[in-house]
Amino acid sequence: MDFFEAVDKRYSHKGKFLADAVPLADLERIADAGLKAPTGMNSQCVRLIILSGREAVSALHDAAPVEALASAPAAIAVLTDGSAQGSKVNFEVEDYAAATANMLLAAVALGYVSLWLDSPYFGGERHGSALSALGVPAGYQLRVVLPIGKPDGEGGRREKLSFGERVHYGRFGG
Amino acid sequence: MDFFEAVDKRYSHKGKFLADAVPLADLERIADAGLKAPTGMNSQCVRLIILSGREAVSALHDAAPVEALASAPAAIAVLTDGSAQGSKVNFEVEDYAAATANMLLAAVALGYVSLWLDSPYFGGERHGSALSALGVPAGYQLRVVLPIGKPDGEGGRREKLSFGERVHYGRFGG
Repeated sequence: MDFFEAVDKRYSHKGKFLADAVPLADLERIADAGLKAPTGMNSQCVRLIILSGREAVSALHDAAPVEALASAPAAIAVLTDGSAQGSKVNFEVEDYAAATANMLLAAVALGYVSLWLDSPYFGGERHGSALSALGVPAGYQLRVVLPIGKPDGEGGRREKLSFGERVHYGRFGG
Repeated sequence: MDFFEAVDKRYSHKGKFLADAVPLADLERIADAGLKAPTGMNSQCVRLIILSGREAVSALHDAAPVEALASAPAAIAVLTDGSAQGSKVNFEVEDYAAATANMLLAAVALGYVSLWLDSPYFGGERHGSALSALGVPAGYQLRVVLPIGKPDGEGGRREKLSFGERVHYGRFGG
């Protein structure tokens, strides 16, 4: 799919997913697009866990019920390795966010929908359960889970501020 | 350009740029791709300043000399509006990073190269000078500057960990 078509089609899918399986090769292509995002100082701190099929997704959903995971046929969990950062500046948040942005577009480019399901949604006890279900060791943080699949029903982007309200020319206010 | 071709071609261009002008329409298309990235809780906190032409880029470079801005014919400065966040969680870093990831790919999709030039590179006094040069008011943070143009000489992605070193299946270690 053309790059800008993917950008235009992407939206946060908060509805249900069809049961249609997502081929592992597609999940790996999405993951690869995420890993090809830049990382600060080339730390490459982003790690991914591919959850392929309902059994794998259900294991996470059972531990930490989140509606978006109740029907998704696949998902990718995004972690960061805290030990990969240098001592001066920590870019973990930038790094996982850039990888996630790439993967959201990659999913659309392959005909799927997805959602940036931030780990705070798992909040409190559910966060710990999610870490256990995924076997995440100390030193790694679970940042985002991206459910991936075909949408069961229409969805779309929420209303946005206009381009002119967010873009300036030459200097702020210009 | 195909989405995955853009992903594969993107690299951090740390060299010089050719003088070839970047049409304003291309810069606006890149900016639009950035604004179409998701933001946490739909805050839409990202603001952009398009610097079109050497005069505009030089004004920033004169205030805060950074090698990547010495030759770039255009740039986009990425800001966040702190007041756009809700009280519970602050997603400003995720939001500007996702917008930046989209814009880096958009630049490649249109035949340009770019660089994630994080504001810490401006460090200390230069950061204040950059804010002044761009007229950034209080309450907004300058996060990244993306020089954009055609490369003067070859460049490429740095060596990376393998896919297998960063991706797990089903659970961590799987």
